[in-house]
Amino acid sequence: ARRGYPEAVLCEGKTMDHLVAIARAVGERGADDPEALGTILFTRATAEQAEAVCRELTGAIHDPVARMVAWPGPVPEPSGGTVLVLCAGTADIPVAREAWLTAQHLGRPTELVVDVGVAGLHRILARVDQIAAASAIVVVAGMDGALASVVAGLASAPVIGVPTSVGYGAAFEGLAPLLSMLNACSPGVAVVNIDNGYGAGHMAAQIAATG
Amino acid sequence: ARRGYPEAVLCEGKTMDHLVAIARAVGERGADDPEALGTILFTRATAEQAEAVCRELTGAIHDPVARMVAWPGPVPEPSGGTVLVLCAGTADIPVAREAWLTAQHLGRPTELVVDVGVAGLHRILARVDQIAAASAIVVVAGMDGALASVVAGLASAPVIGVPTSVGYGAAFEGLAPLLSMLNACSPGVAVVNIDNGYGAGHMAAQIAATG
Amino acid sequence: ARRGYPEAVLCEGKTMDHLVAIARAVGERGADDPEALGTILFTRATAEQAEAVCRELTGAIHDPVARMVAWPGPVPEPSGGTVLVLCAGTADIPVAREAWLTAQHLGRPTELVVDVGVAGLHRILARVDQIAAASAIVVVAGMDGALASVVAGLASAPVIGVPTSVGYGAAFEGLAPLLSMLNACSPGVAVVNIDNGYGAGHMAAQIAATG
Amino acid sequence: ARRGYPEAVLCEGKTMDHLVAIARAVGERGADDPEALGTILFTRATAEQAEAVCRELTGAIHDPVARMVAWPGPVPEPSGGTVLVLCAGTADIPVAREAWLTAQHLGRPTELVVDVGVAGLHRILARVDQIAAASAIVVVAGMDGALASVVAGLASAPVIGVPTSVGYGAAFEGLAPLLSMLNACSPGVAVVNIDNGYGAGHMAAQIAATG
Amino acid sequence: ARRGYPEAVLCEGKTMDHLVAIARAVGERGADDPEALGTILFTRATAEQAEAVCRELTGAIHDPVARMVAWPGPVPEPSGGTVLVLCAGTADIPVAREAWLTAQHLGRPTELVVDVGVAGLHRILARVDQIAAASAIVVVAGMDGALASVVAGLASAPVIGVPTSVGYGAAFEGLAPLLSMLNACSPGVAVVNIDNGYGAGHMAAQIAATG
Amino acid sequence: ARRGYPEAVLCEGKTMDHLVAIARAVGERGADDPEALGTILFTRATAEQAEAVCRELTGAIHDPVARMVAWPGPVPEPSGGTVLVLCAGTADIPVAREAWLTAQHLGRPTELVVDVGVAGLHRILARVDQIAAASAIVVVAGMDGALASVVAGLASAPVIGVPTSVGYGAAFEGLAPLLSMLNACSPGVAVVNIDNGYGAGHMAAQIAATG
Amino acid sequence: ARRGYPEAVLCEGKTMDHLVAIARAVGERGADDPEALGTILFTRATAEQAEAVCRELTGAIHDPVARMVAWPGPVPEPSGGTVLVLCAGTADIPVAREAWLTAQHLGRPTELVVDVGVAGLHRILARVDQIAAASAIVVVAGMDGALASVVAGLASAPVIGVPTSVGYGAAFEGLAPLLSMLNACSPGVAVVNIDNGYGAGHMAAQIAATG
Amino acid sequence: ARRGYPEAVLCEGKTMDHLVAIARAVGERGADDPEALGTILFTRATAEQAEAVCRELTGAIHDPVARMVAWPGPVPEPSGGTVLVLCAGTADIPVAREAWLTAQHLGRPTELVVDVGVAGLHRILARVDQIAAASAIVVVAGMDGALASVVAGLASAPVIGVPTSVGYGAAFEGLAPLLSMLNACSPGVAVVNIDNGYGAGHMAAQIAATG
Ligand SMILES: Nc1ncnc2c1ncn2[C@@H]1O[C@H](COP(=O)(O)O)[C@@H](O)[C@H]1O
Ligand SMILES: Nc1ncnc2c1ncn2[C@@H]1O[C@H](COP(=O)(O)O)[C@@H](O)[C@H]1O
Ligand SMILES: Nc1ncnc2c1ncn2[C@@H]1O[C@H](COP(=O)(O)O)[C@@H](O)[C@H]1O
Ligand SMILES: Nc1ncnc2c1ncn2[C@@H]1O[C@H](COP(=O)(O)O)[C@@H](O)[C@H]1O
Ligand SMILES: [Mg+2]
Ligand SMILES: [Mg+2]
Ligand SMILES: [Mg+2]
Ligand SMILES: [Mg+2]
Ligand SMILES: [Mg+2]
Ligand SMILES: [Mg+2]
Ligand SMILES: [Mg+2]
Ligand SMILES: [Mg+2]
Repeated sequence: ARRGYPEAVLCEGKTMDHLVAIARAVGERGADDPEALGTILFTRATAEQAEAVCRELTGAIHDPVARMVAWPGPVPEPSGGTVLVLCAGTADIPVAREAWLTAQHLGRPTELVVDVGVAGLHRILARVDQIAAASAIVVVAGMDGALASVVAGLASAPVIGVPTSVGYGAAFEGLAPLLSMLNACSPGVAVVNIDNGYGAGHMAAQIAATG
Repeated sequence: ARRGYPEAVLCEGKTMDHLVAIARAVGERGADDPEALGTILFTRATAEQAEAVCRELTGAIHDPVARMVAWPGPVPEPSGGTVLVLCAGTADIPVAREAWLTAQHLGRPTELVVDVGVAGLHRILARVDQIAAASAIVVVAGMDGALASVVAGLASAPVIGVPTSVGYGAAFEGLAPLLSMLNACSPGVAVVNIDNGYGAGHMAAQIAATG
Repeated sequence: ARRGYPEAVLCEGKTMDHLVAIARAVGERGADDPEALGTILFTRATAEQAEAVCRELTGAIHDPVARMVAWPGPVPEPSGGTVLVLCAGTADIPVAREAWLTAQHLGRPTELVVDVGVAGLHRILARVDQIAAASAIVVVAGMDGALASVVAGLASAPVIGVPTSVGYGAAFEGLAPLLSMLNACSPGVAVVNIDNGYGAGHMAAQIAATG
Repeated sequence: ARRGYPEAVLCEGKTMDHLVAIARAVGERGADDPEALGTILFTRATAEQAEAVCRELTGAIHDPVARMVAWPGPVPEPSGGTVLVLCAGTADIPVAREAWLTAQHLGRPTELVVDVGVAGLHRILARVDQIAAASAIVVVAGMDGALASVVAGLASAPVIGVPTSVGYGAAFEGLAPLLSMLNACSPGVAVVNIDNGYGAGHMAAQIAATG
Repeated sequence: ARRGYPEAVLCEGKTMDHLVAIARAVGERGADDPEALGTILFTRATAEQAEAVCRELTGAIHDPVARMVAWPGPVPEPSGGTVLVLCAGTADIPVAREAWLTAQHLGRPTELVVDVGVAGLHRILARVDQIAAASAIVVVAGMDGALASVVAGLASAPVIGVPTSVGYGAAFEGLAPLLSMLNACSPGVAVVNIDNGYGAGHMAAQIAATG
Repeated sequence: ARRGYPEAVLCEGKTMDHLVAIARAVGERGADDPEALGTILFTRATAEQAEAVCRELTGAIHDPVARMVAWPGPVPEPSGGTVLVLCAGTADIPVAREAWLTAQHLGRPTELVVDVGVAGLHRILARVDQIAAASAIVVVAGMDGALASVVAGLASAPVIGVPTSVGYGAAFEGLAPLLSMLNACSPGVAVVNIDNGYGAGHMAAQIAATG
Repeated sequence: ARRGYPEAVLCEGKTMDHLVAIARAVGERGADDPEALGTILFTRATAEQAEAVCRELTGAIHDPVARMVAWPGPVPEPSGGTVLVLCAGTADIPVAREAWLTAQHLGRPTELVVDVGVAGLHRILARVDQIAAASAIVVVAGMDGALASVVAGLASAPVIGVPTSVGYGAAFEGLAPLLSMLNACSPGVAVVNIDNGYGAGHMAAQIAATG
Repeated sequence: ARRGYPEAVLCEGKTMDHLVAIARAVGERGADDPEALGTILFTRATAEQAEAVCRELTGAIHDPVARMVAWPGPVPEPSGGTVLVLCAGTADIPVAREAWLTAQHLGRPTELVVDVGVAGLHRILARVDQIAAASAIVVVAGMDGALASVVAGLASAPVIGVPTSVGYGAAFEGLAPLLSMLNACSPGVAVVNIDNGYGAGHMAAQIAATG
């Protein structure tokens, strides 16, 4: 529980041996003092990695779409302002869900809205009240990343943009929405790494902590 | 008048000597047979280049904001469908104006609307009828280039996106809106080179030729 | 049938669960009001995805080369001007076919010509009449992307360039023909995303709608 | 005062004529209803642009280091939590000052600390209490951009990273710290455009609004 | 006269002091044994640099368009096969002329043809006999660089492509034609650095040495 | 036999159906008039593709290291000057062999020397006579690509550089040796696409045709 | 034993046939004169490659995490100053271990410390004495690469930075830490290729040779 | 004198006001305790900046080619092993001289050799004894950066590569030699930022401290 927030373990790139050792160490620390440890999130876990972690940590919960394992599983009682996660397309759902679950595990009330890309503006315009009510907003979009600018223009809360690697060709694995969001023509947008739903959910939860 | 359209001379990168020689040759060809030649557009001309061209070609008209010289100056009687040029910010005006003038010289009725960036959606929503009525639409935007996706979602006419070099840092001289527009999440968008108002106006005029 | 055109579903990047849910929803909307819905195109579908979609939507037709599923299958009666699809090499055929099928489903008369790369100019010169007669032209090419400039120099109709990821090394997955086409030295070229046959076919069909 | 925050005019890239027209319009709107308008910030203004804006708007204040003009000049009574601006090197001061002034004009109590780069860790370790007390932190750094990761590891408040174009060679005009900050190994960092002090100050002020 | 060819001094990037010292040393070596030294070419020379070199080396000849100084000035009696330099646009002339002069000073018969870009194929088709007769061909082109592929398709001699920095936006200072030429769809093309007329002329002269 | 040289078919990216159809057509053309057709080279063929081609074309020869199939198999009687292929490391052999076989099938006497990277200069210095005697030299190298500059400094024949994708990390799939060879500090180097052994062998054979 | 140091064979990119031939040749040279040959390191070996090498060379030792085979297996008696290898995260261990083993085989006393990333500064601050005592330091880090700057600020020994491909999205396969380390704001840092633990260990061993 | 080495002030990017304030503070610290402070190096100083620094610090020495000011001016008595600086071309001299002066001010015996690029191998082969005798070697080269690999193959001392921005076109401001040096095919090379002579000289002096 560094600085009062749950820790996270990035599974990607770790050998199975190293990951299991980490999970075991977590379990031992948690056995000593569960309060102090708080929740641990395992992110970007393959099915095989998730299974191994769950074997080590009784009561862990695996969300296969978000590729996340949380231990202990139950989310805390929500407090602070609402974190709203908006997601442009269906293919962005895994990243959006990672942000949404992270904010829940950091203790915020959360809402998740999918398929509100700017190609059909009416879909996002139908959400203006929800946007106005949020304390922090996460916008998840690939391809043109245009949703971040549009939402920030409608919101008074800060917007965290998460470019995704959804798209092909000149999307260059997420470079297009990354640059697009960094150049958002509305103020009130800051950006995290491509596909970094965890980072966005964490940041949004920090922002909304004080309502 | 290759393929029935006015010719263009790209002034940028040409020495003064070469440019003057070209203008002189144009004047001579025009003197022989003005009909066959049609209008000649000199694009991306510095003030000094424009002056030199105007000295060679009596009756040429210089638009310093668009950095364009047209000879002969008067635009033809408009025919075909309307070309609508939409421009996100004030700094994009030179490029937008280049597109608008080009379409005029290719014989289309034209409209130019500036400062309708997506940071304030109401500005573009106020234009939905104008967008619906156009036969071809040029969208000029820098930074996030998000306007192209939003407009294409509202239009049934084809949209030509012109990314501009407006912006700084991670706009990388127009790379950000270029990639963003190439990845437009609405169908019906095609893209020309960064700052290429001439190319967009030409293409839009071709599209709108048949209404 | 947003803005009067068929909808498209990009299969790439979607989980099988999400895709099947979308196909099912399409089927239900179509059962309610087939007219209003019009054709739905499923693009960039793997064999497995295509099969799943076809299972949901009776009468759907799958083109494995173009990786496209259309539902309902039959193309509409053609109207408007001709869309001509030109393709530089054999390896570009999947993308060319995607453009060609899309334009057909949007209701245009279409022609598809393959293997007319600029290495053998006589092949493209043999097509000048066909080029002159088209209302909109799609040029599909990888590697040097030079075909777009050459065709635009011969055509009075607008040219939509589709760079492909065909090539290796310094083609950088389609970057080379993308940049080449954006810098086409002939006017009348606009460009869509790398391998985006669907987008090009859509745009060309819009352009040729009015002949 | 869109969405309750001061508006900003990006001076860079605007012609003098357009900028003066905007300043005049601002002055007229402000004469009608100063409350509703609130403060206007003119950012990235050259000396010449700043002078022209100040001529139009009586009482405007120009900060030449931050290249910013504010009208009306006085900052509002501070409310909300503290915005802390940390700046790695002397050459980053212009951007840091832009962030700091923006947060002040948005009504936050602010602190500015310069020359705390990670090459001498003691300098940043001497600030841990100040870091702990802030509600939002802006980290301004060029070159390796390492300060963002280090500060986020010490803070529980969110960190807005501003990569700067300070550096040479493989800094590639700010690309190095941009990528570095987007990959910050500590959670709680989000990033704005290179040199975008205004955007960071705005975002930090939004975050700290509720303390 | 390393390996039997004239030496070259790249003036760009050299201080005036260093350049003058090099010119002086050349003059002294030449005074000792003019035969052994052969011609020296000073490339990419500013007007001021060229003047300084000419002051040191009596009889040197300066071509300001090619930005080249040659000493001794007269070209050798031509031998070997013909080097043909083809140039797409007027703005490419300086680079084309640098290639042409270099090949002359290396002792080849040379021809220079300008303004044969692929936008008007008839211009290049009018040159098929000249192309067939050459022993080595240099193609100089910016923007789409398409001329290299087209010419190589018509020639049996090797083609050296010189991409130029002519163009703007997505030409990215010559990157577009560089990649395009490296991906030439005709065999028989090899490429030198952007704007490197000297290198192309040298290579072509080597190739044509044996007819 | 376009322009007097064997044709080549790039297998990569072609579907098995298309490739077999091409091989069959080749076989039919060859049956009509073997002289006129000459040799056909199938390049970058997978094992499976090579097998399919060999099934269609009796007497075809497959070189699995070079990934090339030639039909008819036997190389012509050599004429012209020698093509020397130099290869920096063991991992570059497939590309080097592709160049070497291509030059053989185009009718040149050839030599192939491997493992002469610049890390051990004595290896390349032991080859100075062979280098001096060649009419055209192909240098195949990945990683730093330094061999091209070193060889060109020792040779009077033209050097064709082939950067390879050998290496990792900052080799960026061949970008490092590509840029390095384009910036060769010795004159007399021109470059083909990354891993393009075929193109280099073709070009070298053209150069050496006249000895 | 070129220049007194063990040789290395980069396995990646080599065919199994070529690799086995190299191992066999090594074995034969070693049989003739083991002293003169010294240790041979086989780097970046897959499990299958390592097995093949070990079959050829009796007594070879395989470290599967570092993907390295050494022959003969035992490390020499250490001499010179200490090489300290510091590693930011668990996923960087393979590269760190490659550096550490290389330095051992080059004869240095070594220390390996893992999981000291800058997100928790206390971890690196707990190592200041170890850092002060080292003669050469290797810093292995992905993502932001910030550890190199922080360590160099604490050390008087030279630091060799090894950026790793650990991370995702805007880490761009190691580009982010590469650029970050090249722009280290502390002096005393030099950088090797992404994931090049071998190169870093070699360089560090050279530096520490004289204590 | 952090960590026992002279401090450096990077002048580039600093306003004149900030730079003068820094110089003044240095002067005051030096007046209090000259021993403890040691030498201060001001790097990448414009003529105007250098003049201002020299006005503040009596006895400072300005090297205009290296763009460096040192205070106090005299270099210390040399100790430790020799630092050898090798420089490929005349245009690289400013960077080479910056490395050379830095190593002198850090107390090493130094040697500077210019114009030993690999285009003429005899020049570098004439230096093998000098290379063998050095304790640390700095290689300064632009364009292909090939000198680093060649020298490292001849040396047993570590090589610090400094890529320079010398070159044009595809040198991309030093990217070409940067990548080339990072991929040096000889072990024993590590790289600093483009044009970073100071960093290389510092690192080499650290390495050679113990002979
Ligand atoms: N602003 C422009 N941007 C891009 N292409 C242009 C522009 N102006 C002219 N062109 C094209 O450049 C060609 C003329 O080039 P040039 O022969 O160098 O004058 C014309 O055929 C146009 O297609
Ligand atoms: N320094 C800046 N950097 C980025 N965006 C800015 C900056 N200053 C103003 N903006 C944005 O640009 C918009 C104003 O653009 P414009 O209408 O062209 O003046 C404002 O709404 C801000 O969101
Ligand atoms: N315009 C040019 N472009 C590329 N390389 C050149 C050029 N001019 C001269 N060179 C090369 O640069 C070398 C001379 O460099 P330097 O010793 O710095 O004068 C010559 O050997 C040429 O190979
Ligand atoms: N992991 C590695 N990364 C970079 N260079 C390496 C590596 N392993 C070996 N090398 C270098 O590659 C050379 C061997 O290349 P090769 O002849 O292909 O085996 C050696 O001399 C080393 O300098
Ligand atoms: Mg907002
Ligand atoms: Mg549309
Ligand atoms: Mg056309
Ligand atoms: Mg934090
Ligand atoms: Mg040819
Ligand atoms: Mg040569
Ligand atoms: Mg240090
Ligand atoms: Mg060495």
